[in-house]
Amino acid sequence: MKIAIIYHSVSGNTRSVAENIRSGMTRIDNVEVKAMSIDEIDDDFVRDAKAVVFGCPIYAGSLSWQMKKFFDTTNLPLAGKLGCVFATANHLGGGGTVGELTMITAMLVRGMLVYSAGAAEGQPYTHLGAVAIKAGDDWQQERARIFGERIARKTIELWGDASEKS
Amino acid sequence: MKIAIIYHSVSGNTRSVAENIRSGMTRIDNVEVKAMSIDEIDDDFVRDAKAVVFGCPIYAGSLSWQMKKFFDTTNLPLAGKLGCVFATANHLGGGGTVGELTMITAMLVRGMLVYSAGAAEGQPYTHLGAVAIKAGDDWQQERARIFGERIARKTIELWGDASEKS
Amino acid sequence: MKIAIIYHSVSGNTRSVAENIRSGMTRIDNVEVKAMSIDEIDDDFVRDAKAVVFGCPIYAGSLSWQMKKFFDTTNLPLAGKLGCVFATANHLGGGGTVGELTMITAMLVRGMLVYSAGAAEGQPYTHLGAVAIKAGDDWQQERARIFGERIARKTIELWGDASEKS
Amino acid sequence: MKIAIIYHSVSGNTRSVAENIRSGMTRIDNVEVKAMSIDEIDDDFVRDAKAVVFGCPIYAGSLSWQMKKFFDTTNLPLAGKLGCVFATANHLGGGGTVGELTMITAMLVRGMLVYSAGAAEGQPYTHLGAVAIKAGDDWQQERARIFGERIARKTIELWGDASEKS
Repeated sequence: MKIAIIYHSVSGNTRSVAENIRSGMTRIDNVEVKAMSIDEIDDDFVRDAKAVVFGCPIYAGSLSWQMKKFFDTTNLPLAGKLGCVFATANHLGGGGTVGELTMITAMLVRGMLVYSAGAAEGQPYTHLGAVAIKAGDDWQQERARIFGERIARKTIELWGDASEKS
Repeated sequence: MKIAIIYHSVSGNTRSVAENIRSGMTRIDNVEVKAMSIDEIDDDFVRDAKAVVFGCPIYAGSLSWQMKKFFDTTNLPLAGKLGCVFATANHLGGGGTVGELTMITAMLVRGMLVYSAGAAEGQPYTHLGAVAIKAGDDWQQERARIFGERIARKTIELWGDASEKS
Repeated sequence: MKIAIIYHSVSGNTRSVAENIRSGMTRIDNVEVKAMSIDEIDDDFVRDAKAVVFGCPIYAGSLSWQMKKFFDTTNLPLAGKLGCVFATANHLGGGGTVGELTMITAMLVRGMLVYSAGAAEGQPYTHLGAVAIKAGDDWQQERARIFGERIARKTIELWGDASEKS
Repeated sequence: MKIAIIYHSVSGNTRSVAENIRSGMTRIDNVEVKAMSIDEIDDDFVRDAKAVVFGCPIYAGSLSWQMKKFFDTTNLPLAGKLGCVFATANHLGGGGTVGELTMITAMLVRGMLVYSAGAAEGQPYTHLGAVAIKAGDDWQQERARIFGERIARKTIELWGDASEKS
């Protein structure tokens, strides 16, 4: 079961959170994860992926324009896939959840199934997705890993079959 | 396959759109739909439903406080179900999509899988869900029916089995 | 009293609404309005302007990436000015108000005073700003003019002096 | 110059942030501030106030339904006043900025002039308003005070006259 993580990162913070999410996903069996920058997308991998996670830094209170450009112009077939988000902000109140919501809007327009686990699986809550201040403190980093784990489990639950679950 | 529609309606406009969505869903085989007001929820039906659609009028530019109260206080088990939205506004620019986005936020927090079909199934587009001005003109009413049809089809696709599909 | 309108337009629809807003503003005395594309900004005019109105088309359910790029990268001194928005969408439910809200977010981060008149001046309501489907039908076009009129009047009210009011 | 703070608080966290904002406002001369719960609003004071600050806890990822009910049903004359927001969430990524944006939407519909200072006055940034985790750590509490100070200064700048400035 393939899962793609597509991120925009300049400072490296968002890439670092992407790496934590990827790491958490590998706790689940039968999942193959690939994290890639919006500048170096592996189209074939995304095409085959059942879930795609998007992440970007917050600029001017919402998603970075580079990430918006990606959503506005991509031809990747995203419809029907599970879609999830994360964001990195410079401070509390910087707009992490607003940026996530703007990505979610684009993903719904593209026909994705949007999922975050929210508060449904207990602590730590990931309301719209994993938010971190810069690359995240220890708790935020572990939350990103747990977020990855939950997404991977949901992907398997939706589309995995018995044989794949080893 | 059960699908619930939960709406808040005072003037009857939102109930009328709910009825159009319900009507469109019945175009799909093996789907049992029940539309209910937030004041008269059939808890057992919602518990069994695989998908739940929420709709409300727009007050002060976003979801009605009654619908927000529902989301803030409900104990219904919504996690893991498909979640969809619609809204009725009094005029273009009244906040239909903002209200939908605020409902979607609450639904993600509750652990739902949010889906709208967006632009992925061609015209008519239902970006975040079906929006209507008051009860909707002919085109908006038919769009609500098509929206219902798409949601029902996706629900069957995700959780239906061969035997259920007659 | 200078007022700038900055828009992103590809098809010409958003420019057309900008022109209607500009036209409405000229109904008010002592106002000098200039509408300009984000590609051809008159920096000096914007610097002197007391109010700046921003408008763009809706892409993927929110503001166009080009408009987001403008907000993310501009060095124009916007703080303290009145800020207003408008948007053009292709259909009802396309995300006009979501796009407006994302622009408003960026404008607040830049320190602007955001204003729309909303429902406070009676019909036609302009909740977050003027929304039009494509270039707007007659009603939407006139609403754009009235929106312009209200913004111009508010700008004079806040910063005009007796001598300027002729 | 009167400034009102209207908050919804159950645990006391939001009231505590309101108190910090009030405290910061008193650093500015000629400002009279009153903080009040949505259950005990001093209508006369609000009517006379030039600025009103609204704050609430985040429920299900956005503003509390009680605060939404206030905005949907109030008859208070808010049009033309400066409007500002703050929010308290239980954790980073809980929806502080989404809740602020939903309040801002309602305030624009009511005809207010929305302001936050954003990033325009340097650190600490208050993008859409002051957000705190629960009652806020030391930094968040001081930021709330600075936010109050900035709002009070802007209110004086807009509507104060020389004689008032002592």
